[in-house]
Amino acid sequence: MSIPLSIKWNNQKLEILNQQKLPLEVEYLTLETLEDVYDAIITLKVRGAPAIGITAAYGLASAAQHYNTNSLDEFQQLLVKDALYLAGSRPTAVNLAWALERLKGSKPLTLTVQEAKGRLLEEAISIHKEDEASCRKIGEFALSLLGNHTKVMTICNAGTIATAKYGTALAPFHLGKEQGKKFQVFACETRPVFQGSRLTVWELQQSGVDVTLITDGMAAHTISAKGIEAIIVGADRIATNGDTANKIGTLNLALLAAAYQIPFYVAAPISTFDLTIESGKAIPIEERPAEEITHVAGKQVAPPNTRVYNPAFDVTPGRLITAIITEKGIIHPEYNKNIVTLLRTQKGEES
Amino acid sequence: MSIPLSIKWNNQKLEILNQQKLPLEVEYLTLETLEDVYDAIITLKVRGAPAIGITAAYGLASAAQHYNTNSLDEFQQLLVKDALYLAGSRPTAVNLAWALERLKGSKPLTLTVQEAKGRLLEEAISIHKEDEASCRKIGEFALSLLGNHTKVMTICNAGTIATAKYGTALAPFHLGKEQGKKFQVFACETRPVFQGSRLTVWELQQSGVDVTLITDGMAAHTISAKGIEAIIVGADRIATNGDTANKIGTLNLALLAAAYQIPFYVAAPISTFDLTIESGKAIPIEERPAEEITHVAGKQVAPPNTRVYNPAFDVTPGRLITAIITEKGIIHPEYNKNIVTLLRTQKGEES
Repeated sequence: MSIPLSIKWNNQKLEILNQQKLPLEVEYLTLETLEDVYDAIITLKVRGAPAIGITAAYGLASAAQHYNTNSLDEFQQLLVKDALYLAGSRPTAVNLAWALERLKGSKPLTLTVQEAKGRLLEEAISIHKEDEASCRKIGEFALSLLGNHTKVMTICNAGTIATAKYGTALAPFHLGKEQGKKFQVFACETRPVFQGSRLTVWELQQSGVDVTLITDGMAAHTISAKGIEAIIVGADRIATNGDTANKIGTLNLALLAAAYQIPFYVAAPISTFDLTIESGKAIPIEERPAEEITHVAGKQVAPPNTRVYNPAFDVTPGRLITAIITEKGIIHPEYNKNIVTLLRTQKGEES
Repeated sequence: MSIPLSIKWNNQKLEILNQQKLPLEVEYLTLETLEDVYDAIITLKVRGAPAIGITAAYGLASAAQHYNTNSLDEFQQLLVKDALYLAGSRPTAVNLAWALERLKGSKPLTLTVQEAKGRLLEEAISIHKEDEASCRKIGEFALSLLGNHTKVMTICNAGTIATAKYGTALAPFHLGKEQGKKFQVFACETRPVFQGSRLTVWELQQSGVDVTLITDGMAAHTISAKGIEAIIVGADRIATNGDTANKIGTLNLALLAAAYQIPFYVAAPISTFDLTIESGKAIPIEERPAEEITHVAGKQVAPPNTRVYNPAFDVTPGRLITAIITEKGIIHPEYNKNIVTLLRTQKGEES
């Protein structure tokens, strides 16, 4: 048993885990062309913000190896064109744009096209390694917070296959397994798209972590009946006051954690913070197609013309969050003060 | 548009709504033989405790019309044999056994087999009519409690098609529609078996009630985003202290209602109370097959050998219940005192 990887880079060959085939088939696809990479992202064969960014970085760096020019200017033009193409695969994915920008800006000191080609590959590898290191740090901080708590609930898939390795909310379980800690994880199936059943259960099984699947409606009873000691989730966006947008169903769990007086943790890299917004009120909630709820596995379960409300995310108020776990440290309330402090310290270190 | 009926009795002909075909097909089946009735119950074509009881009562009374004897003793023997057969279709269904017992005991004053046959049909019709009247009363009490609250959430299907008419938790919506009250109902899909999507949405649509479908994990966000004003659910069993066993997911909603400070109502006939148990701790929680969660619409969504926890019910503590609505009146806390008082008064009236 070992921690599954969503992206493998070996001898200039880019392979990705085809997440569309999970959990019944484990297939790694070799992405040879820029079009292969675009297709893998747009068809959700690779998913999770960090994993998408890493894949795009390798894809762009690989494509650049074949640019047939000795002019750095022309090289840069080709690079910008290809980056623009890849960025169009998922226009709303922040990490995708970020990784491509980082590549575009990675060659200021190169003198030759050959050097530039090498720099691009190095940069892609750096992005990959940094994400793994970042998730590992999140896992270590989460392990320290969880202490002797071993019965933990989670929702969606903030997992190793959404990142370089380890994941965010699932990092302590993978890392804990490596260190011999015995977790008992309860995974909510995460309707409507079943990321819990399809992805979280699969990846924890691969690592040899004890995982039990429940439906989202079973959370309260399970907390009580199975003695759940903590809940840990990922995040899509965190406001300055700690309000956290994450997969729909997260807010349910946060309120249940409060009712049962167990800690509720959010695990996310610092890139998730959006200091341009003061609170969760400013986060727009995307609504997704009715068919995700009225149809299941291609079969219609609700009557024709059913009115549906299908928000993709909900916002958990910071006051319900016991701590936010980042790769740079654990943030406790008051979030309004402590988030900004951590991010400022971070900036200070980097400058 | 009209309130759908699960059972129709016309000119000695028993028809039931085939709930297995819902929501895509509306099919009424004529049950001609005792075997037809047994089959309809065991294959869940008819479901809901009251509806099963009524169907069995008509089935037994109809079968008895064909007993070819003039001996009351022999008639009674045949009746007992057939009742035993029907009771075996769902041995745990309390209303089924109760309805059959009531029929078996309905002929003490009859002098001839012909009279006995007539009495049996009358008794079946009484059971049917009494259930409708009882649900109507629950609906009226619920309407008075809901007052000007119109945005209401529910789970599972405590509806007209589970009873003679109106249902229990859904009674105020059907009845309110008849009276011109405009509810906006939010139905939780109710994983794993989708009673919300398949049944509740369908039957409220049939009545012309405004209903919106959500997944169970969307409850908290929906309460907040849509301004839900009350939650109303049915019950499978209520203990002396008000602790209520109902479909898994009910406890989640009760805790969310408390968090958002909106009322949480249980609607159920007094036959649901079990005064032999002091509290919900004595209620065993049935666990159902893993396949209900790992497979959806026949398609596998979780990995092979997934460990699953699949409790069919949860128990909501009485302290989270704002009021219990019965056909005999509304019960408020302290439940320990008030449940027994209402049931005693009831007994007093009947004796």
